[in-house]
Amino acid sequence: MDKQQLFENIKKKKSFLCVGLDTDIKKIPPALQDAEDPVYAFNTAIIDATAKYCVAYKPNTAFYESLGLQGMKALEKTVEYIRVKYPDQFIILDAKRGDIGNTSEMYAESAFGHLKANAVTVAPYMGEDSVTPFLKYKNKWVILLALTSNKGSADFQMTEGKNGERLFETVLKKSQEWATNEQMMYVVGATQGEMFAEIRRYVPNHFLLVPGVGAQGGSLADVVRYGMNSQCGLLVNSSRAIIYADNSDNFAFAAADEEKKIQAEMAGYLEPLL
Amino acid sequence: MDKQQLFENIKKKKSFLCVGLDTDIKKIPPALQDAEDPVYAFNTAIIDATAKYCVAYKPNTAFYESLGLQGMKALEKTVEYIRVKYPDQFIILDAKRGDIGNTSEMYAESAFGHLKANAVTVAPYMGEDSVTPFLKYKNKWVILLALTSNKGSADFQMTEGKNGERLFETVLKKSQEWATNEQMMYVVGATQGEMFAEIRRYVPNHFLLVPGVGAQGGSLADVVRYGMNSQCGLLVNSSRAIIYADNSDNFAFAAADEEKKIQAEMAGYLEPLL
Repeated sequence: MDKQQLFENIKKKKSFLCVGLDTDIKKIPPALQDAEDPVYAFNTAIIDATAKYCVAYKPNTAFYESLGLQGMKALEKTVEYIRVKYPDQFIILDAKRGDIGNTSEMYAESAFGHLKANAVTVAPYMGEDSVTPFLKYKNKWVILLALTSNKGSADFQMTEGKNGERLFETVLKKSQEWATNEQMMYVVGATQGEMFAEIRRYVPNHFLLVPGVGAQGGSLADVVRYGMNSQCGLLVNSSRAIIYADNSDNFAFAAADEEKKIQAEMAGYLEPLL
Repeated sequence: MDKQQLFENIKKKKSFLCVGLDTDIKKIPPALQDAEDPVYAFNTAIIDATAKYCVAYKPNTAFYESLGLQGMKALEKTVEYIRVKYPDQFIILDAKRGDIGNTSEMYAESAFGHLKANAVTVAPYMGEDSVTPFLKYKNKWVILLALTSNKGSADFQMTEGKNGERLFETVLKKSQEWATNEQMMYVVGATQGEMFAEIRRYVPNHFLLVPGVGAQGGSLADVVRYGMNSQCGLLVNSSRAIIYADNSDNFAFAAADEEKKIQAEMAGYLEPLL
């Protein structure tokens, strides 16, 4: 999926919401625990309930890996389910990978060749040759970590360089030598609302993937005020607040209700762009 | 395995070699391609041929993930094979993971709870709460990326801060607030031989995992000269130079031959510590 298609989907659905499939088997409703594959059963129910009002899904690989082969199978099946049933959904593999060149090639093969996701999150610490192997796939996206939503983002990302730039700023600048905004996005945490204005000075036209709304406490209004651009330029993720909205048999309806609230707010923010 | 046990194994085997199991199915000898699980067949043959002269194995997750479920199964079986048959081997899951706290917990569960590796490589970009969940497991190790062996290490790791420290130095300093040298090691690339002296000023007593000898061109002599400490303090990894030493039916013997050459050199360097 290219940038224009993503924007068209956003306008059509009046939503720039990404639903994070951080499926923790311990938090799945009891009614599903006896399913042959509880994680997949949960995911498909959540996806069917939420696909109408979101434009992207973001399974985080950690939750699946923690279950071993059974979890990896659930991940594969989930991505396949979305691809086949909802082909207009943008699928982000939240993996935060990155290694030396010949090894990043293998991660790219896993994310794009094997799983056929649209995008993968990548950690920038190892620099250019750890990122570029992901860029060899046409119409696939790298979403590079810039300024994350967690407390630890202050440890290194905010370190000020000799040239006055903080590390996340150096990452934003340097990485633009590797790819355009047609193939790269950045992770910017919603918990850093006021930072979006600064970030937009470096990347006015890029899409930003924004975790941290909901359970982590970020404000959607602030993210929009400081971060939205003329093509929206935002994919705001919510995981726990939607998928664990309710733990009863009613979980999928509850997830959809929670999602609709966010989408209604988003529709308002999108008015000027429609 | 704790630090003392690791050092005892190094002295006993006169080796501080880690064999990297970066098994690429395209590079496996033709004779094994028809095996039910070619990657596992290759790995077990390599392990049986090399276990005598190395102290650690380091499967890189990327190579296994690129094959999907089949690859993940080969990884699980490989780690289990080493654990059961060669319990004195230190198993490093080279995964370069790192995410927000509740997600890193899942990666830790995968590496330590599920796979039962001794150590996992972690990327520092997201800071403290992305690393500490891995430290909750007793006698398990975090190996944090500091200065890597690839060209891209210059992009951010060498960025000089306002305080005169380069980023990798800030990582070395800051991360020592999170764990001692009984639970943390650092990745330092062999291609940066002369940097070891500088690195030892920050972490005199830590073990360092050193990739980049062999295919990537690093010098073992330089690494030892500048990096060895009184408890050795080095795990030097070689992957391609050993496991792909030969592509014929003779591959396992060739791998052992290549390994013995490196081990013989290492035995010399270890003399003063024995």
